[in-house]
Amino acid sequence: MSYQQIIAIDAMGGDFGPKVVIPGAANALKKLKNTKFLFFGDERQIAPILDKFPDLKEHSQVQHTDITVKSTDKPSVALRSGKGSSMRLAIESVKAGTAHGVVSAGNTGALMAMSKLLLKCLPGITRPALASVMPCQKGTTVMLDLGANLVCDAEVLTQFAVLGSVYARVVRGISAPTVGLLNVGTEEMKGHEEIRAASSILANIDFPGRYHGFIEGDDITKGTVDVVVTDGFTGNVALKTAEGVGKLSKHFLTEAFKSSPLALLGYLLSMGAIKRMKDKVDPRKYNGGMFLGLNGICVKSHGGSDVMATENAIMVAADLIRNGFNQRVAEEIENVMGQESFVSAVG
Amino acid sequence: MSYQQIIAIDAMGGDFGPKVVIPGAANALKKLKNTKFLFFGDERQIAPILDKFPDLKEHSQVQHTDITVKSTDKPSVALRSGKGSSMRLAIESVKAGTAHGVVSAGNTGALMAMSKLLLKCLPGITRPALASVMPCQKGTTVMLDLGANLVCDAEVLTQFAVLGSVYARVVRGISAPTVGLLNVGTEEMKGHEEIRAASSILANIDFPGRYHGFIEGDDITKGTVDVVVTDGFTGNVALKTAEGVGKLSKHFLTEAFKSSPLALLGYLLSMGAIKRMKDKVDPRKYNGGMFLGLNGICVKSHGGSDVMATENAIMVAADLIRNGFNQRVAEEIENVMGQESFVSAVG
Repeated sequence: MSYQQIIAIDAMGGDFGPKVVIPGAANALKKLKNTKFLFFGDERQIAPILDKFPDLKEHSQVQHTDITVKSTDKPSVALRSGKGSSMRLAIESVKAGTAHGVVSAGNTGALMAMSKLLLKCLPGITRPALASVMPCQKGTTVMLDLGANLVCDAEVLTQFAVLGSVYARVVRGISAPTVGLLNVGTEEMKGHEEIRAASSILANIDFPGRYHGFIEGDDITKGTVDVVVTDGFTGNVALKTAEGVGKLSKHFLTEAFKSSPLALLGYLLSMGAIKRMKDKVDPRKYNGGMFLGLNGICVKSHGGSDVMATENAIMVAADLIRNGFNQRVAEEIENVMGQESFVSAVG
Repeated sequence: MSYQQIIAIDAMGGDFGPKVVIPGAANALKKLKNTKFLFFGDERQIAPILDKFPDLKEHSQVQHTDITVKSTDKPSVALRSGKGSSMRLAIESVKAGTAHGVVSAGNTGALMAMSKLLLKCLPGITRPALASVMPCQKGTTVMLDLGANLVCDAEVLTQFAVLGSVYARVVRGISAPTVGLLNVGTEEMKGHEEIRAASSILANIDFPGRYHGFIEGDDITKGTVDVVVTDGFTGNVALKTAEGVGKLSKHFLTEAFKSSPLALLGYLLSMGAIKRMKDKVDPRKYNGGMFLGLNGICVKSHGGSDVMATENAIMVAADLIRNGFNQRVAEEIENVMGQESFVSAVG
């Protein structure tokens, strides 16, 4: 049987390893056609779990290794000593063309360093960005960079805009996605030099999105744009701040419902609706950080992922592969780089 | 009668001007002793409203001007053409020593530019920071800078740590406030150069707070530290992202309660508790952005402030004045600047 897509999985990554990775893949397989999984990790742990999922077992292959990257390893250490590790072997299978993409819940820094080193960037892309889909009032928005590059110049921010808008187009199916640059105000003179230069480039080039202009922090959840572009320092702080406020809201709401018998009764009556609301913002549904711009699909699953979260991260990788994300990026970035207004701006 | 504190008010600032500013001041006066207000603005608008608050009228004075700074004026325009404006006259009264502090709901950029120009920084402070109190799981935390300085070096971040910890001590009454530097991770090697240098200074100097180390975005609302220090770009994005997520939570909760008759009944029963929760995070309670580090107290009230929000902004200014915030900062910053480990670090 020939498979349309082959996904390499670091079975040892994350807090729970094969116990959640294998069932997660089994669930993803139910939604995917012509898909094969390559699992990398400790066969003694993987095999007995895989036996419980005969369908998955039929469409997968296990490559044994005893070596794993620790969650506490520094990226530099992981690069030196991680040879033959489940994470590295999974990435290498993408490099070799044996798999189309890789999913790992392992050490983020190590995954980024290894995938950059092995897969390299797509032609025209200087640095990969960490991107993720986030809930907003109008549905979802995609945001990048979430921490891969702490300092970004105008050219890199422009590449992020291309990556994000190609994603919104080919994966989310938005024909003309709007792109906003995260800033401290929406007026032209706001922000630092890099962001103003990126704004001027985006306003003048043809790219697969429509440039909206500057946006502010609250525009992320308002859904003002389909794609939020920012440097990795700001993006990471914004993402974690958002997570924190989400938890604070939940904390206060729980406190409120517990504050009186009447409130508790109210909770019991509205429980179904509250649960549906919680489902809408369930972080597991948004699991799967994408390293966009690499010459190979690479998705980071959260370290604490359960089966459902793992399934979603695998679906994120599958969506990128199925929709030919990388091919489209390569075409679009070449198109952007050929434009006079881009060339003259980045020098 | 001699007054312990005199507060200058830009009566024309914000969306509603004297209509909310005067009643807000009247409410604040009920909580304050020995306090006098100096109102700057259009006497024809101010006088009839002031007549409704005889107590306030007795302890206030109006200085007429027809000139106001527009909310759309660029700071540079406001500096040039804002002479004699209600905002500028209010700041000038602090400079002249006629008032101890100023509160304005007007144009933020103009207020910052004018107050910097006229009041100057306290000795030892390079740049003022915009600070605000925010709700968190453990009560409240103070965060700075929220947008006054987009790029900050290690020395400036250290000064912010001093400003924030003096505030937490003298105004919030926390004897040994903890201070965290906002970063993309908590490990020592994380983040960019400026923040790592600031971290190394804070770990080695004696200052009025206890240095906790790096914190991440979600630590703001967890209440991991009493004082969150960051550059103005990151701080502004984080603050507005937090506001956005707060609104998104409210939006989803409202949707949930409206989704079925049972959920609506549940809402009616828990309404009192939900209202108390909303009160806890009511942005009006946290109104009053403080420009800390100026040689004079300056508080920015939100442009859309109502009476309650205005009252809170005035109380923020009054708290800074009553507790001798600026005197303490001057002492503490002198102490920090005299330390060998500070001098050798900042060169």
